[in-house]
Amino acid sequence: MPRSIRVEQMLDAAVGVFSAAGYHAASMDDIAERAGISKPMVYAYLGTKEELFIACVHREGTRLMEAIVAATALQVPPDEQLWRGLRAFFTFVGDHRDGWAVLYRQARGQERFAAELAEMRARMVEVVAGLLARVIAAGGRRPRPAELTPMAYALVGAGESLADWVVDHPSEPPETTATRLMNFVWLGAGELLRGATWRPPVTPE
Amino acid sequence: MPRSIRVEQMLDAAVGVFSAAGYHAASMDDIAERAGISKPMVYAYLGTKEELFIACVHREGTRLMEAIVAATALQVPPDEQLWRGLRAFFTFVGDHRDGWAVLYRQARGQERFAAELAEMRARMVEVVAGLLARVIAAGGRRPRPAELTPMAYALVGAGESLADWVVDHPSEPPETTATRLMNFVWLGAGELLRGATWRPPVTPE
Repeated sequence: MPRSIRVEQMLDAAVGVFSAAGYHAASMDDIAERAGISKPMVYAYLGTKEELFIACVHREGTRLMEAIVAATALQVPPDEQLWRGLRAFFTFVGDHRDGWAVLYRQARGQERFAAELAEMRARMVEVVAGLLARVIAAGGRRPRPAELTPMAYALVGAGESLADWVVDHPSEPPETTATRLMNFVWLGAGELLRGATWRPPVTPE
Repeated sequence: MPRSIRVEQMLDAAVGVFSAAGYHAASMDDIAERAGISKPMVYAYLGTKEELFIACVHREGTRLMEAIVAATALQVPPDEQLWRGLRAFFTFVGDHRDGWAVLYRQARGQERFAAELAEMRARMVEVVAGLLARVIAAGGRRPRPAELTPMAYALVGAGESLADWVVDHPSEPPETTATRLMNFVWLGAGELLRGATWRPPVTPE
């Protein structure tokens, strides 16, 4: 069996065990057994439990970003591009519940992985900022970089938080969740595309 | 000195130490010294380090929610209500950096506090859902409960994530950050108030 396939099998097993048992309770014995590989072999391929967990975080985060980038590569109207990106995100969350649990719940709950998670999140913000830039450009406006990054932060946070809500509503299709978020942010972004700017009120304090 | 003031002083000291040192490295000695109170007295008043930390999370979370509720009690137009709520949030984050760090970074990074944090976040979602309900009602529409909660999740997540961005941009006034988020979500919510609904595209796959 090629090395790369064996590694993928080990990562699949590890993501499943970390997601079900939690980082602390997960054992290398369980991961090896689930992967159908000896424990020394798991150590040889992927290192300690900590290194294995980081490899899981990287793989799941990369898969998620690839899915979003692939979904938004089409030349479609800007709102559809954004919706396709959101749908890819919620589809990933729904189809890879274990992977999402490892990324969002397990990794976030471990102080020692803060740096890895911050780096992964920074990459995600870049991916989303790039998507927003294309969406804005497709709408005929010039994206302003100083506004893109905080907007991407807001959208990533909104998506993460709504994915948390989806965990308690597993029967909702990803399309519906993506449309919920579009109703909140797109009609907003849509006004922005038309050049609207919201100004703070002048009501005296 | 009244007991309540002494407790507040201990919590102030604890929030400062937890924020600066992190939960694990924080010592009860440092907290007692900073509070100017003997260590046995800290234990007597507030319990173990774990209990003390939970008390910090509760106080900071409650303060934040109180600030948002107070800021949105005025009878002002709906967009101004929402902006005032967001401004109160970003003002808290800016003025109580230690408290926000304890709530958002320290508590989130500790698996053992997941339940407390989930409960605090559920309360925050309720506060924001209530604010959105008032905003929508002030706009002359009937808020639909099934849509309010996921919308509140999205907004809470967007705010948290943008607060994370603000940490690297400490000179930005809270008004400006609130306006950034308004530009993204209000013009959206504004369209919603006018009865608009975004519909998924029908472009064939």
